[in-house]
Amino acid sequence: MPQLRKDPVTREWVIIAKERSRRPSDFKHGEAEESQVSFKADCPFCPGNEEKTPKEVLAYRSRDTQPNTPGWWVRAVPNKFPALAIEGDLDRSGFGMYDMMNGIGAHEVIIETPYHDKTIATVTPQECLEVLWAYRDRHLDLQRDRRFKYILIFRNHGRIAGASLEHPHSQLIALPMIPMEVVHEVEGTERYYEWRDRCIYCDMLRQELSGGERILMENKMFVAFAPYASKYPFEILVMPKDHVQSYVDQSRDELESFAEILQGTLGKLSGALRNPPYNYMFHSAPCNSDRERMFHWHLDIVPRLTIAAGFEMGTGIYINVTAPEDAVKHLKETGSEG
Amino acid sequence: MPQLRKDPVTREWVIIAKERSRRPSDFKHGEAEESQVSFKADCPFCPGNEEKTPKEVLAYRSRDTQPNTPGWWVRAVPNKFPALAIEGDLDRSGFGMYDMMNGIGAHEVIIETPYHDKTIATVTPQECLEVLWAYRDRHLDLQRDRRFKYILIFRNHGRIAGASLEHPHSQLIALPMIPMEVVHEVEGTERYYEWRDRCIYCDMLRQELSGGERILMENKMFVAFAPYASKYPFEILVMPKDHVQSYVDQSRDELESFAEILQGTLGKLSGALRNPPYNYMFHSAPCNSDRERMFHWHLDIVPRLTIAAGFEMGTGIYINVTAPEDAVKHLKETGSEG
Repeated sequence: MPQLRKDPVTREWVIIAKERSRRPSDFKHGEAEESQVSFKADCPFCPGNEEKTPKEVLAYRSRDTQPNTPGWWVRAVPNKFPALAIEGDLDRSGFGMYDMMNGIGAHEVIIETPYHDKTIATVTPQECLEVLWAYRDRHLDLQRDRRFKYILIFRNHGRIAGASLEHPHSQLIALPMIPMEVVHEVEGTERYYEWRDRCIYCDMLRQELSGGERILMENKMFVAFAPYASKYPFEILVMPKDHVQSYVDQSRDELESFAEILQGTLGKLSGALRNPPYNYMFHSAPCNSDRERMFHWHLDIVPRLTIAAGFEMGTGIYINVTAPEDAVKHLKETGSEG
Repeated sequence: MPQLRKDPVTREWVIIAKERSRRPSDFKHGEAEESQVSFKADCPFCPGNEEKTPKEVLAYRSRDTQPNTPGWWVRAVPNKFPALAIEGDLDRSGFGMYDMMNGIGAHEVIIETPYHDKTIATVTPQECLEVLWAYRDRHLDLQRDRRFKYILIFRNHGRIAGASLEHPHSQLIALPMIPMEVVHEVEGTERYYEWRDRCIYCDMLRQELSGGERILMENKMFVAFAPYASKYPFEILVMPKDHVQSYVDQSRDELESFAEILQGTLGKLSGALRNPPYNYMFHSAPCNSDRERMFHWHLDIVPRLTIAAGFEMGTGIYINVTAPEDAVKHLKETGSEG
């Protein structure tokens, strides 16, 4: 019989319907297309084409090189087609019953490597750490702008996951408000804290680690596991074992530990599901508000194996045909680096 | 500059970013594949193959024909691979901090026509009315079961929109709880009522009809319009002008008026966007609870022209590159029956 599982944070239900399932191995299709060449002359993110992007806001580069020229190993630039504009005032206004404001915010691209055919999953651990450090650098810099209340770092891998350029990159969006979904998540942590005087994510980690059937891997500081109420087949959360509110609160040493888990998890997913398209999203505490206290940051990794249809769009409830316990079992058995 | 618009019901923000836009006419790709033949011997929904589906729970058929044989013009059957099971008890239970219950519910398929190559948009108005009446019949029957708190009727058109079988059909799911997204919608209407002593959807219709720039079409009883905070390009809502809580409260005469608007709207979308994949979802009041009072039912039609990626998944905020005013203008200019 299908099972209904409740997400303890958001209070959303998920339908775990193995009966409807294609077996895990049936998911092996729809590979994310990837380049076979390390350089493409017409790629705006490849070295030598720096003038094709807006001017860089950050670059880790050799000391003897100039901004917006080759010599960098990680580079962040404003998005050329931004969803939000960095300059201007919010100008909140109303029209009858409707409310609006100007689309003020930041929309940046973090180019992960000069090599067209690598990704954050396949670069060296040291190179991966540099990307993670760039995430933190840009996040820290933007949250100094008091207009911004929420910052999201995310990655779209493969066309099915919404990537429009092949060259490996992540994105960052800074918003002038806290999205309602994040409000519900924050309220979930607050509600639990009022009830139990404990962090809901810390409790979740304790229960997961004592059970173990949904744990994919762990090291000294981080755990990767399939959430109890996984919305998507093979969804994985990565979380610090300590109660850390925001990604930017992590030190370089700690991010080295995170890099290990992140690359390990992406490697297992790639091996078991043959380089699937995926999205990952950082969930950090909101900033410049008073809502950050009880948050516990985490990374949500979602392989894009299924299509949201009318049911999901009409209810927000997801039908997941692979129980998270089975997903972890399958990843452990078959998932090895590419 | 991009614009942030707030959905007055759910309080979700939407980013209207025309700057990022492909022009409306660029959406003309990704047609929903459709059959060219009216009968397929191996299709479980074609007449003569009635034994390939679970036994019918409703059929409008010639008086001289037997159940589960040809002779029907609309037929409803349980889904062969249901996401929820109709028999059993909820057995609510907990495991540490987690909550669960059995996946009890109904999952039915409504086969709209015996003809493999037609759809609810292209059948005659009279045939369309019969499908809409079958929706109502099944909805009414299932809400008599006091275990069910929410019933969703929806349609997936085209593979990109999640359809797995080509033969035109709609689906119905009955749930043992009110989904959180619906709770937020209901709470939005309640909050507005407390503040103004009026229905938020009635007010919305008044404002839309007085402005007119987002109205696609109307008749005596229904209005089709692009919502102010449209999440998706060319999203259209169809709503009764009178305050009607649930779809099942409509009479046959009223549904005749609804059929006209529904077919007109689907025809315009098909003409302007070349038979795009789409989903539509009925939003009716919850049932068997005390939360139905202030609801105002409506149909949400969403052409699937874009891909939700990391930003949407991480925030719940959608970036819509086509302002609803522009979408309506484009539909009025170019949208004529396919």
